[in-house]
Amino acid sequence: MKRYEALADDIARSIHAGLLKPGERLPSVRTASAARKLSPSTVFQAYYLLEARGLVESRPRSGYYVAQAAARLPPEPEAASRPDGESRDVDVSALVFEVLESAMTHDVVPLGSAFPSPLLFPLERVGRAVASAAVHLDPWSTVDDLTPGNTELRRQIALRYLIDGMDVPADEIVITNGALEALNLCLSAVTRPGDAVLVESPCFYATLQSLERNGLRAIEVPTHPRTGVDLDAMKAAIARHAPRACWLMPTFQNPLGSTMPDERKRDLVALLARHEIPLIEDDVYAELHHGAGRVLPAKAFDRDGQVMHCSSFSKSLAPGYRIGWVAAGRRAQAVARRKLTTTLNTNVPAQIGLARYLERGSFDRHLRRLRRTLAAQQEQYIALVARSFPRGTRVTRPAGGYFLWIELPPGGDALLLQRQAGSLGISIAPGPMFSASRGFGHCLRLNCGHPLEPRIDSALATLGRIVAQQLR
Amino acid sequence: MKRYEALADDIARSIHAGLLKPGERLPSVRTASAARKLSPSTVFQAYYLLEARGLVESRPRSGYYVAQAAARLPPEPEAASRPDGESRDVDVSALVFEVLESAMTHDVVPLGSAFPSPLLFPLERVGRAVASAAVHLDPWSTVDDLTPGNTELRRQIALRYLIDGMDVPADEIVITNGALEALNLCLSAVTRPGDAVLVESPCFYATLQSLERNGLRAIEVPTHPRTGVDLDAMKAAIARHAPRACWLMPTFQNPLGSTMPDERKRDLVALLARHEIPLIEDDVYAELHHGAGRVLPAKAFDRDGQVMHCSSFSKSLAPGYRIGWVAAGRRAQAVARRKLTTTLNTNVPAQIGLARYLERGSFDRHLRRLRRTLAAQQEQYIALVARSFPRGTRVTRPAGGYFLWIELPPGGDALLLQRQAGSLGISIAPGPMFSASRGFGHCLRLNCGHPLEPRIDSALATLGRIVAQQLR
Repeated sequence: MKRYEALADDIARSIHAGLLKPGERLPSVRTASAARKLSPSTVFQAYYLLEARGLVESRPRSGYYVAQAAARLPPEPEAASRPDGESRDVDVSALVFEVLESAMTHDVVPLGSAFPSPLLFPLERVGRAVASAAVHLDPWSTVDDLTPGNTELRRQIALRYLIDGMDVPADEIVITNGALEALNLCLSAVTRPGDAVLVESPCFYATLQSLERNGLRAIEVPTHPRTGVDLDAMKAAIARHAPRACWLMPTFQNPLGSTMPDERKRDLVALLARHEIPLIEDDVYAELHHGAGRVLPAKAFDRDGQVMHCSSFSKSLAPGYRIGWVAAGRRAQAVARRKLTTTLNTNVPAQIGLARYLERGSFDRHLRRLRRTLAAQQEQYIALVARSFPRGTRVTRPAGGYFLWIELPPGGDALLLQRQAGSLGISIAPGPMFSASRGFGHCLRLNCGHPLEPRIDSALATLGRIVAQQLR
Repeated sequence: MKRYEALADDIARSIHAGLLKPGERLPSVRTASAARKLSPSTVFQAYYLLEARGLVESRPRSGYYVAQAAARLPPEPEAASRPDGESRDVDVSALVFEVLESAMTHDVVPLGSAFPSPLLFPLERVGRAVASAAVHLDPWSTVDDLTPGNTELRRQIALRYLIDGMDVPADEIVITNGALEALNLCLSAVTRPGDAVLVESPCFYATLQSLERNGLRAIEVPTHPRTGVDLDAMKAAIARHAPRACWLMPTFQNPLGSTMPDERKRDLVALLARHEIPLIEDDVYAELHHGAGRVLPAKAFDRDGQVMHCSSFSKSLAPGYRIGWVAAGRRAQAVARRKLTTTLNTNVPAQIGLARYLERGSFDRHLRRLRRTLAAQQEQYIALVARSFPRGTRVTRPAGGYFLWIELPPGGDALLLQRQAGSLGISIAPGPMFSASRGFGHCLRLNCGHPLEPRIDSALATLGRIVAQQLR
């Protein structure tokens, strides 16, 4: 991340937190450049970026001011969730499919979608790398690259861990059909039907569907929309339910966007290690930080090989190619064996092609562009939600990913909103999809991974109108 | 299949069955051509082919005679298996992995491998089709081709069913990561832990591993090496165990090579339908018949949508691409939903690329060549087994696929053979891998999907010597 981006990010946070108020003047470029030990042009770039995001405005011969529009930005949700502490069988899959399948056609406005716009990815460049791998495929690679997967791709992934200061040997990495397969392999490697599993509240609906399919019980742990799971509550849940696994998203959590601070991640890993509970870490949005630099996963604090770190290229580089992986710690062989008996192997030319793409080093250039785009889109969506939704609506400010979590004011009903909006060709992801106990009836997840266009502006306005009617 | 191939096949069967004896003269070309209503050149081609396979020899100015070598060909196994009729928990996975992992390096002679030589496939041509799909990928296809899969590929697969006279709508087809994922999705869609499942005896070890992983009980049904499962025994097993599913390979079964006659397939489907037991049909070798023409799957006799027909392109066209499918009958939606929560989707460019390859119509040309090659290799391997293995050894004569099932004479021990041969760099697949009750200790499966080369000749000789020592 560039310096000017870091500075802009700092200032944006101060505005969102109310430390800098609308109409207030930003420090002059000269002052800021001296105080921050940055060149004046870096400060200028930061101010331009903030202006582009609608957070500040320039007044000729006067300087930069916090935009009035920033005043209308909705507050963040403040309270952690409060699930009831029970463990329970899961029965959400039908609801989840009902919502997803209603939104599967192309002409529905994809605010409920789980995918960012595919136009944000260098699909032609990735395609050329895969094309070359396919045309020049060594026939024996179809046998040699059997699970755990292509050696060069695993080496490239291990190198990326190394850049983050993590020592994850290639031997520990198993290539999978996307992160979802990785997560499912891990879950089935460490649980038996009837076991209880710790999850966030709210959590990604596919987690709940996996638990449901495997006959597992969910223990929903209170989760704060900024800082993630509550470790005291987790301790209590461990004592009470003796869970066999923990499946979390400590970074840019889906749907909250929350990120556990490093220290809390360290404590989480230590707590689970003490109880010999494996951590299945879903880290698919890791690369999509909005500017504050790489966030370390919980895996970085693992000393016992208990963390199974799952990720993929589907959200960062190559949607549709289904190349994910797990760094499975001490369970690498167990996971590889499960993969051999469920899907056997992962598309070989795609593995080789991605390995070559990574070797060439253009991944990071693409990521820088993608992060800027997603950060800017998030600001724009928040501004539009501010304009469209009734007062009292709260919206998260994730530091990465492309989801906003919205708490409606009392009286708001997200399931009803989903049905009403659905009939108008607008999808949303209502809160109860993300909870085994069907909580979060007044919450929804909005996808801000699609560049704004008139139909999205207008869909957000429509959503706001429907909510306002609900509150009457 | 060409006419001369059909004729050669008929004659080969007569020789194997002992109807034509070594030294006996074949009908003259003129006689055969009149009797069969074939042109003389067709008969000549058939005789040349038989000569190439070592089954007949020509004597100048005299005609064609059954080769003396044919006399030394080992007999076929004659008896159906006799499992004990119990249902049991499965615990073979560790043995299977021990055997498979010992053979995973390239320099081991792959007689125990499950894959044919990758050199038998038009990988460059397939690669070009996939390359073009990857380079010109419509970004939205990464969203639109989500499970159940790419529309054009599903249409091409439906067309192939249609050519076989089967009405399988594209809507019923779900694209999967190879047939193994299809089979596993079907199994998990119709069973709960503790359920009993009907399987063949012996059966494909991955079937047993799936049962083991899902906490299911296996009921092994007696299976004849030529004609497949015994339906009377199946009736008894249904009455006794009330199984919830049946997982079979009615065509070119792995490991036996057995094929149920059409009439028996029809009765099987009717029997299962009467008891509302879904049939999971593994048909991955369907395209690899050795000349007698397409064999209809059990699915062709399905009137109730109870048959879930699983296949793939991995054994017929594109190993390493992991493109399979299931025509799941009335359970198409249930299977698609399971896929959405386990691996989400299948590599999109590979789906589009294979669809384009199929459109172009060169698949059947490739298949004709592949079938001839596999048929010839099978004859050559049988001849080598005949030369190398002790008298009393029995060998199957599958009409398709690339596996031989070998019964050793009393005293032969396939597990011991596997360890002894393994230490010499030769892999085999010992019988107990294929049985929940660890039967078939005197049997092994040989892969004849690799063109003969000196190290394979010599490996077969080594195997024969070790077996001979065991018998002493």
